[in-house]
Amino acid sequence: VIITHSETSTGVLNDLETINSYVKAHGEALIIVDAVTSIGAVNIPIDELGLDVVASGSQKGYMIPPGLAFVAVGPKAWTAYETAKLPRYYLDLGKYRKDGAKNTTPFTPPVNLFFALQATLRMMQDEGLENIFARHQRLMSTTRAAVKALGLPLFGPDAVASPAITAVAPPPEIDAEKIRTIVSKRFDIALAGGQNHLKGKIFRIGHLGFVSERDILTAISALEVALRELGYEAFTPGAGVAAASRVLAES
Amino acid sequence: VIITHSETSTGVLNDLETINSYVKAHGEALIIVDAVTSIGAVNIPIDELGLDVVASGSQKGYMIPPGLAFVAVGPKAWTAYETAKLPRYYLDLGKYRKDGAKNTTPFTPPVNLFFALQATLRMMQDEGLENIFARHQRLMSTTRAAVKALGLPLFGPDAVASPAITAVAPPPEIDAEKIRTIVSKRFDIALAGGQNHLKGKIFRIGHLGFVSERDILTAISALEVALRELGYEAFTPGAGVAAASRVLAES
Amino acid sequence: VIITHSETSTGVLNDLETINSYVKAHGEALIIVDAVTSIGAVNIPIDELGLDVVASGSQKGYMIPPGLAFVAVGPKAWTAYETAKLPRYYLDLGKYRKDGAKNTTPFTPPVNLFFALQATLRMMQDEGLENIFARHQRLMSTTRAAVKALGLPLFGPDAVASPAITAVAPPPEIDAEKIRTIVSKRFDIALAGGQNHLKGKIFRIGHLGFVSERDILTAISALEVALRELGYEAFTPGAGVAAASRVLAES
Amino acid sequence: VIITHSETSTGVLNDLETINSYVKAHGEALIIVDAVTSIGAVNIPIDELGLDVVASGSQKGYMIPPGLAFVAVGPKAWTAYETAKLPRYYLDLGKYRKDGAKNTTPFTPPVNLFFALQATLRMMQDEGLENIFARHQRLMSTTRAAVKALGLPLFGPDAVASPAITAVAPPPEIDAEKIRTIVSKRFDIALAGGQNHLKGKIFRIGHLGFVSERDILTAISALEVALRELGYEAFTPGAGVAAASRVLAES
Repeated sequence: VIITHSETSTGVLNDLETINSYVKAHGEALIIVDAVTSIGAVNIPIDELGLDVVASGSQKGYMIPPGLAFVAVGPKAWTAYETAKLPRYYLDLGKYRKDGAKNTTPFTPPVNLFFALQATLRMMQDEGLENIFARHQRLMSTTRAAVKALGLPLFGPDAVASPAITAVAPPPEIDAEKIRTIVSKRFDIALAGGQNHLKGKIFRIGHLGFVSERDILTAISALEVALRELGYEAFTPGAGVAAASRVLAES
Repeated sequence: VIITHSETSTGVLNDLETINSYVKAHGEALIIVDAVTSIGAVNIPIDELGLDVVASGSQKGYMIPPGLAFVAVGPKAWTAYETAKLPRYYLDLGKYRKDGAKNTTPFTPPVNLFFALQATLRMMQDEGLENIFARHQRLMSTTRAAVKALGLPLFGPDAVASPAITAVAPPPEIDAEKIRTIVSKRFDIALAGGQNHLKGKIFRIGHLGFVSERDILTAISALEVALRELGYEAFTPGAGVAAASRVLAES
Repeated sequence: VIITHSETSTGVLNDLETINSYVKAHGEALIIVDAVTSIGAVNIPIDELGLDVVASGSQKGYMIPPGLAFVAVGPKAWTAYETAKLPRYYLDLGKYRKDGAKNTTPFTPPVNLFFALQATLRMMQDEGLENIFARHQRLMSTTRAAVKALGLPLFGPDAVASPAITAVAPPPEIDAEKIRTIVSKRFDIALAGGQNHLKGKIFRIGHLGFVSERDILTAISALEVALRELGYEAFTPGAGVAAASRVLAES
Repeated sequence: VIITHSETSTGVLNDLETINSYVKAHGEALIIVDAVTSIGAVNIPIDELGLDVVASGSQKGYMIPPGLAFVAVGPKAWTAYETAKLPRYYLDLGKYRKDGAKNTTPFTPPVNLFFALQATLRMMQDEGLENIFARHQRLMSTTRAAVKALGLPLFGPDAVASPAITAVAPPPEIDAEKIRTIVSKRFDIALAGGQNHLKGKIFRIGHLGFVSERDILTAISALEVALRELGYEAFTPGAGVAAASRVLAES
């Protein structure tokens, strides 16, 4: 069973624990977790949950450029590896395990990112994992409170909200792409758009990794200006920032 | 007559044109303008006004680190220079004129800033001087509108407002330094404090040089959170950002 | 037929043209060229030779960190691709072709290297491909002349010498690793060692990519100091640099 | 008495101790030392010698860009300061002393260089002052031995040689500027030229601050190539590097 823990396209955090319990109940199936946008935002107790494979990348919660992947492989997965028939060479995990034990890599790695990783791990250690998780919760709550105060529907319910990204539906009469364009051109802020059939239907506010409370205040302020420019008036001016600052002042 | 064009300590832009007309009426006096925080924010037609000496530095409107000074010296000032009695060596403008003509400098200059200057002048050329001046006007108006909407008194009247910096008096019961501390610690934003007898009485929002509309929205949002945290409730939450975004949406 | 054009481990440049003519004579076989350390050092007329697949990476002749691969695929290879049975996903060339046509990539690429690539391609364009190839020839000749003047055997004959790297056998009584250690510790110059069974038997002087005539002079000078320190006296002091500078002065 | 400790223009290190003893014998005179190119290359026991004023800058032994000056002022000099009549403002040492005590500066300093200074002081601490001085002695000896081996006259005698820079007279038939041009164009190495009446008569090899043994080997190798190109043949090819490497191998 392969699951994407945090769905970047919709801002939904899947219930890893419950899904995992069903996989475990099956007995034989492996659980393989795409944790690319959840690691660094929420705690993933890999060993405690007995997750078989958990994979992530350098470019999200680790806050550095893309180019490194991190894969945790458990004993049951290694057993499956031994009998797996799929031909493999460059992406052969066994090679990486073998060379990793000798503190090297089977192929030329992006060495520049090793330096970046060292720097970012120090930053993460300084902030502390618990604080990092709490910050992501706070950024998520702040963003969602602000969006609600602007009268815009959130794409997913609070119960499954991802601490990495918040998907928002614009007012029906406004194309999400127009909001993105104004916010980008005028304020140099990149909001993600909807993918495939959601294009134009939603925009997404990322709050994963190197993001601060200040960035959320800024994004909400910019969003207010963009909505106003596009003629949307169903909110008290400043209500988004007011809601955001209320959450921040209380936390 | 030596005047500071833009008073950084109070956020006041002196009326250079009027003062200059009185100096010119005198006939003999020179006008020497400290334009450190006005060059790059407002137009200073040096030749048209017949300003004798205009001095600025690299670290304000030019947006690069401190270390370079720019001095424009007119014919009348050079005449005064010839008969000036003050001993001089390192700061002898004549040396710089002489060596400048040979494309060199009399003493070792901070060469690293020459590269920075080249980069920043290209940026300024790309944006265009008129656009730069307009941006500073817009940032000033936005900041002032937001501060008024929060019910806080501006330190100087609109008629003499500096496009470089806005000085604000906090609510009487709140020490300006406390606002600065929260905004700095929580949002990593540096507001300037009051100097000398104004310490604690005002705080100042800089908008000179490498500052965007986004930065002002951010600063106002952060200010709202800080005021709320300090118990100041005499404003509708979000009113500052609402006022700011109104100005931005209209400009 | 898969061939490594420039053998980094031995400093040998394989005769691509001849090998290719045999492959072409066969009629059906594809020729797949690992050009990682030859592209950027010698001309590879891919279309003229009708090479089916030519692959390189960002970290050699392109002078930027590892992380990007460049693969040229000819029509015959694409035909083979259509019927190939090997399962593929991340390394599926077809995905890259399809997305490349839309100016995007199927998976998150190391975007930081795109900026580096743009910078390095401008540098290469400024120097000119012919000049780049000539520089590599000159560096190779200079290095080989210097090594001969020091009385050390070159690992491969001149006729098949690689313009990317020169492998050298140390005097029999001296471990190549000792030379590498001195040159590294004392002069901060990285010479490559021998791989596998050649470890200790050879050392290698790289001259691929961002390497200048000055670097070769420096490496040879450092090598002379190291040899002297290790008690090797079978060369006139300075002979290596003298030979190198003779080649440079004449070219 | 104002003396320049290390004369950059001629590569001569003045005998500070002897000159100082005469100044001290006078009783009243102050000794003011321009140590710009000696601090960081040789030990200057300011207190022990009772030097009244010692001045240096950031751009030489400290290895960072120009922009900071360091001035040590002794008690006798401060007494003279109290009664000095020369008008002063920006360069008034008293202002710096007063503000320095409060950990600030009287005028806007080049803050970027404060960060650079912190980095460079850590580097200097890691290397150790004694090692830094020894390195400069070694670089000086190496350079001088190499120049002698090339048959070129050194501008100053060994007894007064500066560990910061070595001035060399080219062969009579060769203009020093031509040597500098080749070495710069071909090898991207900047040799200093002669100043004023020495222009064309000497060139100077700097070895102050961020300079390693490797750099000297490189410079000598490049010099050999340039001399050969200019038709100077009165030296055994490689003799300069041979002499340099002999000194390095022995030290």
